[in-house]
Amino acid sequence: MSIIQIIGVEGLPIIKAGDNLAEFICKAAEKQGTPIQDGDVIVVTHVVVSRAEGRIVNLDEVTPSQFAKTVAELYDKDPAMVEVVLREAKSIRRMAEGKIITETKHGFVCANSGVDKSNVPGERIVALLPENPDVSAEKIRLEIKRLTGCDVAVIISDTHGRPLREGEINVAVGVSGIKPIRDRRGEKDLFGYVLRVKQTAVADELSSAAELVIGQADEGVPAAIIRGYKFIKSDEARATELVRPREKDLFL
Amino acid sequence: MSIIQIIGVEGLPIIKAGDNLAEFICKAAEKQGTPIQDGDVIVVTHVVVSRAEGRIVNLDEVTPSQFAKTVAELYDKDPAMVEVVLREAKSIRRMAEGKIITETKHGFVCANSGVDKSNVPGERIVALLPENPDVSAEKIRLEIKRLTGCDVAVIISDTHGRPLREGEINVAVGVSGIKPIRDRRGEKDLFGYVLRVKQTAVADELSSAAELVIGQADEGVPAAIIRGYKFIKSDEARATELVRPREKDLFL
Repeated sequence: MSIIQIIGVEGLPIIKAGDNLAEFICKAAEKQGTPIQDGDVIVVTHVVVSRAEGRIVNLDEVTPSQFAKTVAELYDKDPAMVEVVLREAKSIRRMAEGKIITETKHGFVCANSGVDKSNVPGERIVALLPENPDVSAEKIRLEIKRLTGCDVAVIISDTHGRPLREGEINVAVGVSGIKPIRDRRGEKDLFGYVLRVKQTAVADELSSAAELVIGQADEGVPAAIIRGYKFIKSDEARATELVRPREKDLFL
Repeated sequence: MSIIQIIGVEGLPIIKAGDNLAEFICKAAEKQGTPIQDGDVIVVTHVVVSRAEGRIVNLDEVTPSQFAKTVAELYDKDPAMVEVVLREAKSIRRMAEGKIITETKHGFVCANSGVDKSNVPGERIVALLPENPDVSAEKIRLEIKRLTGCDVAVIISDTHGRPLREGEINVAVGVSGIKPIRDRRGEKDLFGYVLRVKQTAVADELSSAAELVIGQADEGVPAAIIRGYKFIKSDEARATELVRPREKDLFL
């Protein structure tokens, strides 16, 4: 019988720029009686990673461009926030109903270039996505290895809206130590039929599973340990493997 | 500390038309030492539900229309399979690279109208989606209540490809007893900031979490118990709440 556990890591302090996030997670996991083990998948929400890396912006210190001001006026938004969103974007996909859908510098298509207002201290402070979330994930993974001796996978997650379906889910924006897609083509099903199309986005599924503990707590739960999931290790994996180029997209 | 368990339900027999799937799941869960409890979320893959409901088709008994034959020739597909896919579709969204993306009669946008070749016995047998997956989920939920006395939620899941992102994830196509979207607008974050846009598609996240045990087993695991997740109960919930009408879609 296979049982997977999703364990919320609680009791972390408010993360500040320069903090050793990996150490905080290891200590908090230990303190609550669920120390990190070999084979765990550690899912961390991007906002705490961004805070630890100093990737936060005070909107009062941002001078919006004329374009940002125009967009802000058209869509009833904060000009400084629009300016930050545009700076983080490679392209604008759509603007409507007060929402700006962009392609981020990393290649993710999401609302507001992933710039996040919630769970950041201060009314006018926003968190950007990490500069390179895969590198951020790798740093955390190596630091956990150094501190605990454990080989784990690390996923950095963000909350994304989706085309065609209502509601947001958590997906992976950074990975380290795990193949984000499990290629099952060639495997046989229950009746010996060879699967021809199955490629499972396990890093996204793990991120969504983690959100079940991260999202339901009253107090802040910035990370989750997923225990008992046999993932496929990888040293070169990148979260952008999960991004489908527009020209290859059959849905759009 | 919050811990959620995802328990694979193993050892079910091959499901045939007319089988009492709920009873098989209850018995298998009991036999493996993890009997169903109050508050569990039971995620069942649609293929076993379809098999129990006799929603399977022998492609040898299907007479393809001229249109199905033309499409099959253009995209190098089985004419009988194309015929079944078209019969299950409300509209065709896209055809390319040997894939047919349709809108199903229920409103889901997915490959092949959700018609599934894998995990169905027989080379030429395919499984359709249940006629009304919410009703299917409700029947299973009420039967579990009758057999065990337990109040649970039931989700019927399917594997969907997605616009913009590579790889498939499991999402909900039928729900009973659970609100599929958790509306968090108005809740406060860690720093007292009131969330303005957060609506979490928890039924999809639970389906993806379940896939972590359903997808990784060598033998068939058609269902999972998710234990420890505090969901919001609902008697009128429908999985189509998760479907965003095309005209409201900002990504497309």
